[in-house]
Amino acid sequence: MRVLGIDPGSRKIGIGVIDYASVQKIRAVTWKQISLRGSELVERLLSLQDELDAVIETWKPEIVAIEDIFVRRNVRSALLLGHARGVALATVGRRQLEARSYAPARIKQTVAGHGRAGKDEVRSMVRMQLDLPEQPPEDAADALAVAMTHALIGAVLDRAGGWSR
Amino acid sequence: MRVLGIDPGSRKIGIGVIDYASVQKIRAVTWKQISLRGSELVERLLSLQDELDAVIETWKPEIVAIEDIFVRRNVRSALLLGHARGVALATVGRRQLEARSYAPARIKQTVAGHGRAGKDEVRSMVRMQLDLPEQPPEDAADALAVAMTHALIGAVLDRAGGWSR
Repeated sequence: MRVLGIDPGSRKIGIGVIDYASVQKIRAVTWKQISLRGSELVERLLSLQDELDAVIETWKPEIVAIEDIFVRRNVRSALLLGHARGVALATVGRRQLEARSYAPARIKQTVAGHGRAGKDEVRSMVRMQLDLPEQPPEDAADALAVAMTHALIGAVLDRAGGWSR
Repeated sequence: MRVLGIDPGSRKIGIGVIDYASVQKIRAVTWKQISLRGSELVERLLSLQDELDAVIETWKPEIVAIEDIFVRRNVRSALLLGHARGVALATVGRRQLEARSYAPARIKQTVAGHGRAGKDEVRSMVRMQLDLPEQPPEDAADALAVAMTHALIGAVLDRAGGWSR
């Protein structure tokens, strides 16, 4: 199963693609952090759409994992994040891909073992568990983390027979 | 000049199209409130995109006016609004249309004469100033209000020679 993890933002996005067959066999396929082009928000949203379309076209994921909405301290940046996340979801949906949302605490719990893990801790665990040669850029690591969350939870459901694909 | 006003939401959107030649000649062309199809957010975002595309295709606006981001009391609904607004902006941008944002206080000031006007007051003024036979649905009235704001401010700039089209 190939999972595309997305960490959308209004200035850059992180993407992380993984393949998994079981909990023990999760492999990172590709990851990157993409700076969105344009000084205007609208340009950047279109850039996000184009980049995501290209990633889907190239890597052909079977499902998408994305962090659930959470309220940041700065509400205005949360609103901007909403813009980016909305465009990401619409882009994915337009390509008939299902997107699964995972709450931040769920991601931390799954990847780092506890729901209050710090961002750096989660990112280090991503690198370690995927056995990456170097630390991925922050947003790419976050995208890999949400993809891994889907793989780990999905694989458990697989074994329980509760996974529909 | 034909302006499309948009009031985007995650469950419904309001649209309002007006034509104007001067401050004295603003005419409502069409308006409606559209309920978005789908129980899932992603479906509704795609529905928003489709509806907006159809409106642009049918009414061929030259410019788009949209309310600026504002923080609602309920932060989660503000985030959802961000999703819808992001998709609306990307849809408009994809069609090479410029979108101008107007702050809520600016809209109230322009349409109702003071920046602290209530929503009902703004909506009544929209009906009165556009000489509509009946009160448009709330979201359609809000969309007409932002389109009017653009027309009124734009028309003033016209006379001052500061309007670029």
